[in-house]
Amino acid sequence: MSGVNIPMPREHLERIVRQVVRQRLSSGPTIGAPTVPYTPNLVVNVSARHMHVRPDHLRKLFGPDAELTVFRWLYQPGEFASEQTVTVFGPRKRMIERVRILGPARDYSQIEISFTDAIALGIDAPVRPSGQIEGTPGCIVVGPAGVVELPCGVIRAGRHVHMSTADAECYGFHDKQYVRLHVESSCPMTFDRVLCRVDPRFLLEAHVDTDEGNACDLVNATGVALLA
Amino acid sequence: MSGVNIPMPREHLERIVRQVVRQRLSSGPTIGAPTVPYTPNLVVNVSARHMHVRPDHLRKLFGPDAELTVFRWLYQPGEFASEQTVTVFGPRKRMIERVRILGPARDYSQIEISFTDAIALGIDAPVRPSGQIEGTPGCIVVGPAGVVELPCGVIRAGRHVHMSTADAECYGFHDKQYVRLHVESSCPMTFDRVLCRVDPRFLLEAHVDTDEGNACDLVNATGVALLA
Repeated sequence: MSGVNIPMPREHLERIVRQVVRQRLSSGPTIGAPTVPYTPNLVVNVSARHMHVRPDHLRKLFGPDAELTVFRWLYQPGEFASEQTVTVFGPRKRMIERVRILGPARDYSQIEISFTDAIALGIDAPVRPSGQIEGTPGCIVVGPAGVVELPCGVIRAGRHVHMSTADAECYGFHDKQYVRLHVESSCPMTFDRVLCRVDPRFLLEAHVDTDEGNACDLVNATGVALLA
Repeated sequence: MSGVNIPMPREHLERIVRQVVRQRLSSGPTIGAPTVPYTPNLVVNVSARHMHVRPDHLRKLFGPDAELTVFRWLYQPGEFASEQTVTVFGPRKRMIERVRILGPARDYSQIEISFTDAIALGIDAPVRPSGQIEGTPGCIVVGPAGVVELPCGVIRAGRHVHMSTADAECYGFHDKQYVRLHVESSCPMTFDRVLCRVDPRFLLEAHVDTDEGNACDLVNATGVALLA
């Protein structure tokens, strides 16, 4: 990732190290090391509208030598909001400017928007897990160096929760299981269909979109919990 | 209400009559009439941003002879979206245009916005039941004939469900009780703090705001249910 220009901040690295240590300590008897019960540390974040981009699309949008550069590191290790943004056009020239690309580049291009955005763009975006873009609506993406017409890829990302294997074991959940997420606030809410995405590298983090975050006033939430 | 210019459509009148008949038929033995079990007919609607207005504010905004005129009748008997709209200004001149006034006029002025609107306006609107505006933020309201500065009254209306006495009995709910509302869709959701507002004149209708409606894709919902 030669385009990654700013190092991951110390707190992010420490978070990842802590996670690994907690998992190691709790993964059964190790000679000389105490076994500590693993305690999941659930974080819920709003995933604002963004784009994932294929390398060839990136070059078309930003020029032949373009690479994604870090604007801000995200919670999941290695993921970042890039400095690169695009304008997304729906039918009838309705558009949303400054849609940020998340890095690193992927092997498919995809635009994740909220239902509010979808109404503004005039695109009937279906709820899909990230990556499942077959048969979804397309759009026009405009960057400083060129235009890409996506035949498909505009989705409202289904709410989901990233978790490590240790987290999943602790909850008794498995990969691709649907669970519930409760948010306690002045307008409390239970999200009833939250996809578990289990990977040893993941930190425990649920993603909801802007509409969902606003609906439950997530920024002022007093508690969050995952339920079977 | 001399300002009310268009009659309530036949389907609205029929809905109200049907409700009354269903309640009568189910309210115990009447000589010669069968007792039919009362079946609630739950409707969930999005309450878009709107204003309620005091008569003196209405005159200041729209002129000394102003009256609210019907743009569209709402689901609750006698309630209507008026033809009158205003512009709402938050601090630093950020504004939302064409905020519709709902009629009839009330004895307090109040602006109900979503959290998304609140962010756009830069107003930290608290979640409140309609009418409980003490200590809430104010705003500037501009109409074609004048300006009103509201010292308070900008809220995010707490989600609630209107119900008749018969509906409340049927569910075993009472006025001011908090219940839950489940919406089944591709992104199903349970609203955990829904205020019951019981009145013999009410039709059974839950109100959520735009964020909440978008978060659960209410327009494409396949089912709704009230839960204790």
